[in-house]
Amino acid sequence: MTGITSHGEKRLVLVSGRAHPELAQAVADELGIEVVPTTLYDFANGEIYVRFAESVRGADAFVLQSHTAPINEWIMEQLLMTDALKRASVKQVTAVMPFYGYARQDKKHRGREPISARLMADMFATAGADRLMSVDLHAAQTQGFFNGPVDHLWAMPILTDYVRTRVDLANAAVVSPDAGRIRVAEQWAAKLGGVPLAFVHKTRDITRPNQAVANRVVGDVEGRDCVLVDDLIDTGGTIAEAAKVLMAAGAKSVIVAATHGVLSDPAVRRLTESGAREVVITDTLPISADKHFEQLTVLSIAPLLARAIREVFDDGSVTSLFDGNV
Amino acid sequence: MTGITSHGEKRLVLVSGRAHPELAQAVADELGIEVVPTTLYDFANGEIYVRFAESVRGADAFVLQSHTAPINEWIMEQLLMTDALKRASVKQVTAVMPFYGYARQDKKHRGREPISARLMADMFATAGADRLMSVDLHAAQTQGFFNGPVDHLWAMPILTDYVRTRVDLANAAVVSPDAGRIRVAEQWAAKLGGVPLAFVHKTRDITRPNQAVANRVVGDVEGRDCVLVDDLIDTGGTIAEAAKVLMAAGAKSVIVAATHGVLSDPAVRRLTESGAREVVITDTLPISADKHFEQLTVLSIAPLLARAIREVFDDGSVTSLFDGNV
Amino acid sequence: MTGITSHGEKRLVLVSGRAHPELAQAVADELGIEVVPTTLYDFANGEIYVRFAESVRGADAFVLQSHTAPINEWIMEQLLMTDALKRASVKQVTAVMPFYGYARQDKKHRGREPISARLMADMFATAGADRLMSVDLHAAQTQGFFNGPVDHLWAMPILTDYVRTRVDLANAAVVSPDAGRIRVAEQWAAKLGGVPLAFVHKTRDITRPNQAVANRVVGDVEGRDCVLVDDLIDTGGTIAEAAKVLMAAGAKSVIVAATHGVLSDPAVRRLTESGAREVVITDTLPISADKHFEQLTVLSIAPLLARAIREVFDDGSVTSLFDGNV
Amino acid sequence: MTGITSHGEKRLVLVSGRAHPELAQAVADELGIEVVPTTLYDFANGEIYVRFAESVRGADAFVLQSHTAPINEWIMEQLLMTDALKRASVKQVTAVMPFYGYARQDKKHRGREPISARLMADMFATAGADRLMSVDLHAAQTQGFFNGPVDHLWAMPILTDYVRTRVDLANAAVVSPDAGRIRVAEQWAAKLGGVPLAFVHKTRDITRPNQAVANRVVGDVEGRDCVLVDDLIDTGGTIAEAAKVLMAAGAKSVIVAATHGVLSDPAVRRLTESGAREVVITDTLPISADKHFEQLTVLSIAPLLARAIREVFDDGSVTSLFDGNV
Amino acid sequence: MTGITSHGEKRLVLVSGRAHPELAQAVADELGIEVVPTTLYDFANGEIYVRFAESVRGADAFVLQSHTAPINEWIMEQLLMTDALKRASVKQVTAVMPFYGYARQDKKHRGREPISARLMADMFATAGADRLMSVDLHAAQTQGFFNGPVDHLWAMPILTDYVRTRVDLANAAVVSPDAGRIRVAEQWAAKLGGVPLAFVHKTRDITRPNQAVANRVVGDVEGRDCVLVDDLIDTGGTIAEAAKVLMAAGAKSVIVAATHGVLSDPAVRRLTESGAREVVITDTLPISADKHFEQLTVLSIAPLLARAIREVFDDGSVTSLFDGNV
Amino acid sequence: MTGITSHGEKRLVLVSGRAHPELAQAVADELGIEVVPTTLYDFANGEIYVRFAESVRGADAFVLQSHTAPINEWIMEQLLMTDALKRASVKQVTAVMPFYGYARQDKKHRGREPISARLMADMFATAGADRLMSVDLHAAQTQGFFNGPVDHLWAMPILTDYVRTRVDLANAAVVSPDAGRIRVAEQWAAKLGGVPLAFVHKTRDITRPNQAVANRVVGDVEGRDCVLVDDLIDTGGTIAEAAKVLMAAGAKSVIVAATHGVLSDPAVRRLTESGAREVVITDTLPISADKHFEQLTVLSIAPLLARAIREVFDDGSVTSLFDGNV
Repeated sequence: MTGITSHGEKRLVLVSGRAHPELAQAVADELGIEVVPTTLYDFANGEIYVRFAESVRGADAFVLQSHTAPINEWIMEQLLMTDALKRASVKQVTAVMPFYGYARQDKKHRGREPISARLMADMFATAGADRLMSVDLHAAQTQGFFNGPVDHLWAMPILTDYVRTRVDLANAAVVSPDAGRIRVAEQWAAKLGGVPLAFVHKTRDITRPNQAVANRVVGDVEGRDCVLVDDLIDTGGTIAEAAKVLMAAGAKSVIVAATHGVLSDPAVRRLTESGAREVVITDTLPISADKHFEQLTVLSIAPLLARAIREVFDDGSVTSLFDGNV
Repeated sequence: MTGITSHGEKRLVLVSGRAHPELAQAVADELGIEVVPTTLYDFANGEIYVRFAESVRGADAFVLQSHTAPINEWIMEQLLMTDALKRASVKQVTAVMPFYGYARQDKKHRGREPISARLMADMFATAGADRLMSVDLHAAQTQGFFNGPVDHLWAMPILTDYVRTRVDLANAAVVSPDAGRIRVAEQWAAKLGGVPLAFVHKTRDITRPNQAVANRVVGDVEGRDCVLVDDLIDTGGTIAEAAKVLMAAGAKSVIVAATHGVLSDPAVRRLTESGAREVVITDTLPISADKHFEQLTVLSIAPLLARAIREVFDDGSVTSLFDGNV
Repeated sequence: MTGITSHGEKRLVLVSGRAHPELAQAVADELGIEVVPTTLYDFANGEIYVRFAESVRGADAFVLQSHTAPINEWIMEQLLMTDALKRASVKQVTAVMPFYGYARQDKKHRGREPISARLMADMFATAGADRLMSVDLHAAQTQGFFNGPVDHLWAMPILTDYVRTRVDLANAAVVSPDAGRIRVAEQWAAKLGGVPLAFVHKTRDITRPNQAVANRVVGDVEGRDCVLVDDLIDTGGTIAEAAKVLMAAGAKSVIVAATHGVLSDPAVRRLTESGAREVVITDTLPISADKHFEQLTVLSIAPLLARAIREVFDDGSVTSLFDGNV
Repeated sequence: MTGITSHGEKRLVLVSGRAHPELAQAVADELGIEVVPTTLYDFANGEIYVRFAESVRGADAFVLQSHTAPINEWIMEQLLMTDALKRASVKQVTAVMPFYGYARQDKKHRGREPISARLMADMFATAGADRLMSVDLHAAQTQGFFNGPVDHLWAMPILTDYVRTRVDLANAAVVSPDAGRIRVAEQWAAKLGGVPLAFVHKTRDITRPNQAVANRVVGDVEGRDCVLVDDLIDTGGTIAEAAKVLMAAGAKSVIVAATHGVLSDPAVRRLTESGAREVVITDTLPISADKHFEQLTVLSIAPLLARAIREVFDDGSVTSLFDGNV
Repeated sequence: MTGITSHGEKRLVLVSGRAHPELAQAVADELGIEVVPTTLYDFANGEIYVRFAESVRGADAFVLQSHTAPINEWIMEQLLMTDALKRASVKQVTAVMPFYGYARQDKKHRGREPISARLMADMFATAGADRLMSVDLHAAQTQGFFNGPVDHLWAMPILTDYVRTRVDLANAAVVSPDAGRIRVAEQWAAKLGGVPLAFVHKTRDITRPNQAVANRVVGDVEGRDCVLVDDLIDTGGTIAEAAKVLMAAGAKSVIVAATHGVLSDPAVRRLTESGAREVVITDTLPISADKHFEQLTVLSIAPLLARAIREVFDDGSVTSLFDGNV
Repeated sequence: MTGITSHGEKRLVLVSGRAHPELAQAVADELGIEVVPTTLYDFANGEIYVRFAESVRGADAFVLQSHTAPINEWIMEQLLMTDALKRASVKQVTAVMPFYGYARQDKKHRGREPISARLMADMFATAGADRLMSVDLHAAQTQGFFNGPVDHLWAMPILTDYVRTRVDLANAAVVSPDAGRIRVAEQWAAKLGGVPLAFVHKTRDITRPNQAVANRVVGDVEGRDCVLVDDLIDTGGTIAEAAKVLMAAGAKSVIVAATHGVLSDPAVRRLTESGAREVVITDTLPISADKHFEQLTVLSIAPLLARAIREVFDDGSVTSLFDGNV
């Protein structure tokens, strides 16, 4: 037969944008590799320049970016990096976005809105991403926005393992901060071994019209260590309000737990003043120094990402990393 | 300038599969038109034959099919009709699926599953659908599975207008049959003017391990007319169980309300025996004679579909038909 | 150079729908492997559930389904399995459809029909199939409906090897049941070493208008062992009629040979009563117990499929399995 | 409502490549318009230059090219014209190819061949064609190679209307030049009112191996006016040979009728010497002066094309122009 | 014929992002319409929210955004607006980007870079743009990055009409600031009636290696009014340096003219100190108050955009607005 | 785990069209392989037939074609070969086009033209090319027309290495034949160590209107060995004219150097009479015997192509072969 035959090899490379270099370094350390040296800067008018300093031909490339503020800048940077990888002849690109930007705009809440989360998926596909990897999507349906494999990682075990050491499970309750997130709270309750469930409900007194909205707790929390759970904390309004309502309802203590610490202003102030004795998050998003406060605990997501990347590269089958496998 | 110039015209046509011809006829009647005469039959080996008996060139075609059992047959028929419309030179095709088949498989619940709802959207796009129209999707995110306009109609006003005439709102409660559907119940509560909210929660007694699961009501329902709401009733297990739990918890009465009456066996028996005094659905799916039972009320969805089709054809702006406009 | 380098591996897996598990098992046996354990069932409303019970990451997956009745159900199941494979990170998917459903609707026979065979190809591409494998397509042009490799296998050698042992070639004729299938008959005639050719022609007596249609034999069959060939037998009308005409024209005997035994009702009765001494088919479609009749001979297609799958996996070059290599 | 509203208009324009300007002019005359003035020439190295000399914004453009030799040059010109139309903001492009180049390469006759007819369809789609229009495709399946509307015109009525005036139907036979084209002959026989059918079969004497191939007539032609039909005449070998065989078998006369007169060398000599008393074709392809011979009759295809173009523009429903409507 | 027939209408709407509302207003004023009222704001974490406050169904929508800093934010906003328009059932979307962001990254200057200008085109197509409109692209090839119509407007006439009033053409020279932009200068020279041409060339003295780079003028500028032209002024380094070199070479005066005033820091200082007596730009990008300096003249691009938008909507043929028609 | 696991292999194959078989052979020799035996011929009507004589399943195929006259024929042949490779199950196809046909039509010079260079890229993608390889594109932006990796090779080192041996660098000048190609000349000047730069400018005397156009040299060439550079020589008009102007301006000698020798008539005559002492090109295009003239030197491009092909196959990192790495 004509031609040249040789044995196939494959190579894993990790590239990183500028949004959260500490996380990229931590993942690289876990994998025992170096992040690919990359030139990244802004031109004077804000356009981003990207160039990889070494060849990535034929590689399985993982391009990591944290969708933190300035979020559009970092998403664009990751798209440009993906395009550069595609044109640099990599074998495949996995866009790793520990927090998936625009994930909350996953439907039209009202007519004539975009479905921004779908547009993100399409743009990454257009730029050349063959696969996405993310952690605890706001809605699992977002996986379906991408027409290819999505590795949906599941940070809850990291959080529950920690919370388990901080509360008396025999006297605890898992609480959802509003009606829409009860499903997550149910998973927590199951994971913690059948802890009772409650939620905070925005209500209006039907007998007195034109009355302001009030929050009340549905379920039994009196005297309990309450674990108030959500997928993310943005400005912290709902969460902080829920913590106060829980304390007012007789909770013994409140621990807040969430995967993504967006912590937009004034989240830090609100959480500090909320009465929660601890706020536990992961570092899917960078937590700048000015966002650290006494009650805050940040757990590392790097080991989870590193193990998932390695599994993907090795075509492994440790599905326990991924969602939906309680 | 060279060529022939003439005034543009546009034409609306309605075509229908075999799944629910009564609904198509009702929509046509509302629109004041005839359904396009169409030849549809199965070959001996089950392959479907489709042919339109008159020209549809240049038309805005609406192809209506109800995704009822045998659901794969009817979905395939609608896909084949869409392909035939595209190849017959229509201007655009709107696939009207009052109940969106496979909508509940909108994410991977566990690894190595399909995301069937996304595949449906993609297959309709592949066949030639330019737009989708559906009613009360199981999850609003499903709109984002289609890369084009989705007219997401909102049947709740039809149901609430009716229910309003059947219960004493001053002494009612809206109840979600499980934690995952509370958002819908919240919308109902708001729509009914601020009625209190409750939900049924599957729980396990933490102090006695290996104990069976039990349902309990979270929220106050005693002495109230309970409106138990969901987007669809399939085998009726969850709903019927919830109705019983509500009655056991001291509810004065239970009315079940849902948009889509899938009513798979043994839903009729379960609902009949559930203690609910009325079960209200719409006819997005055909309700065969053997599925009618004493407590069942079926409201017509045809006026809503007809008005939406007309709006789409006229580029109208009556957005109140569509979701997200409470 | 940065990153991790390792040797590439590749893995062949075979998955199967529920349409014809015996064939999947036979192919697996030929390959010396197990079919991937898979959960497949219908929900109450007929929607199909799919899940693979073990990891298929990185695999070359062959998903086998026989397009038998209920054909739309089984096609949809194969599409859903393909979607699940794609999202489960396989390297590539080959959709194996020994009989290609809707293959006969490969053109518009009249205006405003679909081209269903093209739609099937497009839907498999949409779901994620990288390649198709099929046996004896109704028209070879159907290969061109798929925008990628199509492994078009050729069952004729299996049939001719068998028929060769059943007739006296020196005194045989190959007969096409109508004008449209003469090309296949020509290939048979060549393969059998230059056996004379004939065909049955539907005709009307021109001198007597409004006369019913009659069949007559074009070519010489008197005293010969006639091999009546087609790609498939559906309701058997044309074939059985042709067999009768041949016997009436003085044929010594008639053997019917076809690749695909669709055998829709009333094929069994028609064939039994046709006067053919033997009907030879393969098991590209399952032949249920009630379809077996005395004259029926079913040859196994599994060895051919298994060899082709292995060749594809090994990038082999045994093109003699494929069509067009007489 | 914001914005500017005006009445829509639509405009038909006809553009033409350089392959067969007489046909374009004839079509334009039938439509009562001018062909859009267009600059077309070859650069020194053979690259083609295209520019339309007037605006075509918003028009329904029909771009006509005859796929005659040098066929690759003319196909490329039509593709470039299509691209230019797309970028010049036409509303839609219909690529009109009276003879569809590469139509005979519609399947892989052997492994490792292209499916050239599919590639043509895809390239026209890529260049921007929304619709194709062609006449008497070699295989009707080719329609399915294009993922959009194909207007498949049917020249047979033009030919049969003429032939009807040239033979005694009561004493005629329709003959296919080989086994593969019998379907067309059957349509002719039906169209002419039930004329008997025959075909020429390539055969080998089974009792004497290694004997050369011979042609023989299957069916009764003795003393009859034979109408030898095909979709196209290329080098004329098969047709001329068939004409001789028919005369040798006692035919009273032979008329050859085909839609497409490719007439590649040595077709003219072969047909002249074939014994056919007349050869009837249309001008889907240009017939240069040196290809005219005494027995040749060329019928105009322009009225058919013009009526079809007008129907498409007007969203008309005269389906009798199109195939499959005997 | 079945169905409803009505006359087609079409509607032009203009929507605008937040980057340069004054330009949108000016364009709307020229068109005599209002900009569609639109809700646009940033969420706390920087994600952008978009919603149109009135129906745009069926409209020809022009979505205008100026790609100024923060450029990634504004590009993303325009992409989200495009997605929202597509999903809101507009007939077609034209993305109007007077300055095309990332246009300078139109090729790989070195290996492993993205081709960012192509990615922009693809992302707008993905989001739903049917057409692009831009002014004076950095390289005309960028038109080819979009697979559809690109209306490439030509601002040079606006600039030359003004400059003509400011210099003595009989004693002028057109100068390119470097070798790569001479083509633009040539067009200027032609447009101004054959004014002599010069360019500034970066050079190194070959006889003295390791010598610093110096600029020198190629062509004759002594005693002339020099018009120093470019498509854009970013940080102004090259332009300001060229102006100085020209003055040093004996130019009588220097006028700088460019379409796009990016004016990134320290452009204002550099231009002020460059010795140029006037700097003429258009307002394709907003010029904030702190960027105004004494020598700056800003011409309005709004009339050109408005006329082009109107032409596109009316399918007009005033090609003189567009490029390449000297 | 289920299935068969084996080690991956990869295989490089080289296939070639008929345009420039000597180049394919030279590349194969450099690689130490045979060109894949391939059947290629024209049918009587000019359609091209393609078939590979041995299996290419799973291979990395490089399909080489030189875009020389008849250029449309050869481009079509390469497209058909690409389609055949895709359908023959290769792993990936790299279309190698040392000279990229239609590269000069990379933008709309005037309205209503195609962007032919983009169409070429799209057609190769449609046919199945995963990657393109070309040498010295007319404009580097053409890389961006292909949505995937483009290996843009850089022949300048081959030319400069040779020219360095032919001129006295201390007394040389690099000259661009017109204003548009100065960038290339600048790269040459840098590559040769800082040689002075000049260009020929078409000018009109402003004081005497209606005067014919004249060429004049901008920059200093007197007494120098001028290296007149361009990417290609087509009819040679601009180059020959420039050579004459240089000699008239007192150049000591002129060497013409270009990558692509299109040499369309009357290039040979023009170059011979131009006064240039040597014309240096590569064999990216075949140079037929009648195009050889005394001053012509043809350097081989085969080593460069072979090394690049090998690098691509090996995922190598010798980026010095590629453009933009001075």
